[in-house]
Amino acid sequence: MRIAVDVMGGDHGCAVVIEGVKRALEADGRISAIHLVGNQAEIHAALAQTGLRDRRVHIVHASEVLTMEDRPAAALRKKRDCSIARAVELVHDAKADAVISLGNTGGIFAAATLKLGRIPGVDRGGIATVIPTPEHEFVLLDSGANVECKPLHLAHYAVMGSIYSREVLGYKRPRVGILSIGTEDSKGNELTLEAFKLCKLIDINFVGNVEGHDLFENRVDVVVCDGFVGNVVLKTCESLAMAMFSMMKRELTKNPKRQLGALLAKNAFRAIKRRMDPDAYGGAPLLGFNGTVMIAHGSARERAITNAIRVTTEAIQHHVNQVIALEIGRANERLMAAEAAVSASVPA
Amino acid sequence: MRIAVDVMGGDHGCAVVIEGVKRALEADGRISAIHLVGNQAEIHAALAQTGLRDRRVHIVHASEVLTMEDRPAAALRKKRDCSIARAVELVHDAKADAVISLGNTGGIFAAATLKLGRIPGVDRGGIATVIPTPEHEFVLLDSGANVECKPLHLAHYAVMGSIYSREVLGYKRPRVGILSIGTEDSKGNELTLEAFKLCKLIDINFVGNVEGHDLFENRVDVVVCDGFVGNVVLKTCESLAMAMFSMMKRELTKNPKRQLGALLAKNAFRAIKRRMDPDAYGGAPLLGFNGTVMIAHGSARERAITNAIRVTTEAIQHHVNQVIALEIGRANERLMAAEAAVSASVPA
Repeated sequence: MRIAVDVMGGDHGCAVVIEGVKRALEADGRISAIHLVGNQAEIHAALAQTGLRDRRVHIVHASEVLTMEDRPAAALRKKRDCSIARAVELVHDAKADAVISLGNTGGIFAAATLKLGRIPGVDRGGIATVIPTPEHEFVLLDSGANVECKPLHLAHYAVMGSIYSREVLGYKRPRVGILSIGTEDSKGNELTLEAFKLCKLIDINFVGNVEGHDLFENRVDVVVCDGFVGNVVLKTCESLAMAMFSMMKRELTKNPKRQLGALLAKNAFRAIKRRMDPDAYGGAPLLGFNGTVMIAHGSARERAITNAIRVTTEAIQHHVNQVIALEIGRANERLMAAEAAVSASVPA
Repeated sequence: MRIAVDVMGGDHGCAVVIEGVKRALEADGRISAIHLVGNQAEIHAALAQTGLRDRRVHIVHASEVLTMEDRPAAALRKKRDCSIARAVELVHDAKADAVISLGNTGGIFAAATLKLGRIPGVDRGGIATVIPTPEHEFVLLDSGANVECKPLHLAHYAVMGSIYSREVLGYKRPRVGILSIGTEDSKGNELTLEAFKLCKLIDINFVGNVEGHDLFENRVDVVVCDGFVGNVVLKTCESLAMAMFSMMKRELTKNPKRQLGALLAKNAFRAIKRRMDPDAYGGAPLLGFNGTVMIAHGSARERAITNAIRVTTEAIQHHVNQVIALEIGRANERLMAAEAAVSASVPA
């Protein structure tokens, strides 16, 4: 497997990304090539710093970087030699099987749209983020790519999320729900109510509406929503979990008695942190494009990068995109058949 | 102060509600009357069970109850003698200063709309829920009343939430933000981008867009969003916090060593639980109506009810609705002036 890594654009500099790459190369013999895409001088310095020497590593120089402040589509036209564009091109040119980037999410989305194009039949791509819960993981999509969604987009997310959950997380028959404000069929807004009807028509394990209360109760494996709601939910969960951990730390270190208690119970805290680890997957796939595209958090550190590479190899190995092409085709057939039946039943 | 309490519709039966009322009456001499609205026989039984005997208590019989399954507007027309309708009528008839209900949120919203009407100038009412964080509390509105929002609704929520935060929570100059998917002015969806422009025109301490990451970092005191997003965020936070507490309990009781540690550190856990207590306010006001309307969680227990009554007395005492009428009037003037200025600048 050949993976292009856009090493620019992360919060902690490219050496942290390259250290993550190094560990992934050490762990996984299936990786045949890693293309490090970015500023050549910085990459050379980081290679020396991390001591990464591996014949599978190639450097692809890119003179520019898309920043968080850049407006994606416009910046992509202007900064033709930016690292994300170059990295995505490697996939387009069949020199890499997948691309990983920590950069501007909008930029990655725009680059994928422009340079890879969508899988035939997919109306809009979406980001599928894996969120840990005490007992399992669920996939949330779209978690931020597509802010103004149509019902068909949510139906396609249901199909793609189901496939990702099955192929990469190993859930046999993932329960798919639409995120809404009540579990009754009649609850929701215009978007979710229409999407509900479509999801009932396609071949997924659709459990109907789910609400916030269901997310951490092991009732759903794939949670479908528009990119605005998904992004808000994702960041709110990250923020609340972090706040609770830091409050716990502060309270547990307040006096020697509590410190001793914390020491005795430290394995409990470790187990919780391990279970709720946001870096366990390290990357969220941008699903729906002709190429495997993985988005890592801008703040990702070494371990998150290593994990993102592992998840990427899983997605490649399980042919996620080919399965999406197949199942989206089938879903669209069902939706069109249902529409035709409705049209036919309306007297002319 | 005279408060009508719809004692029906809670998950734990009316005796739990009445026990909460009893404690509130014991604690607060400013309460001059409590009207218990619901099934007379059940109320009598609950009064005997809880030992509540207070000359301030009055019973108002209602033969029907709005259930969670009822479609609010339709059910309200059919069940004319339901407890929520009767309780709201007491406010309309000036026999009570406020109403508290644990029932069907849609039903409360419909009853308030039908029987009380909106404060002049307010375009749509909204629910303001207080959410605890490690260092402060923020008000989230709308948290579930108004699923399809217009930009003006969000601007009105900004004004009303600001007033509630100031008058009831005591924040001097509450920071108001629009919940979006990035803090830059240009981030958001159609609704939030338009609402952003309106919020800049009115006299509030507007801090711009906030995102999920800001919520638990003490960066904003009033978070404005549509009722769909607000409800999802509220329930997701409740679900995640509960999941983390239960995971902690499970891990800390796994073996004797951890149990001893937990015992030594028990004050730390108590402090966290107290700080993140969802029952501290017990009720969320439905703002924007001609009358003080407080919504308690269907699962509210005694303490939550007592707290909801306390918060209700605060809202009454601080004349929240009169202040809303005044400040919404001023906000609308500013918005109209800005609109007029734009129209005038366009050549005919």
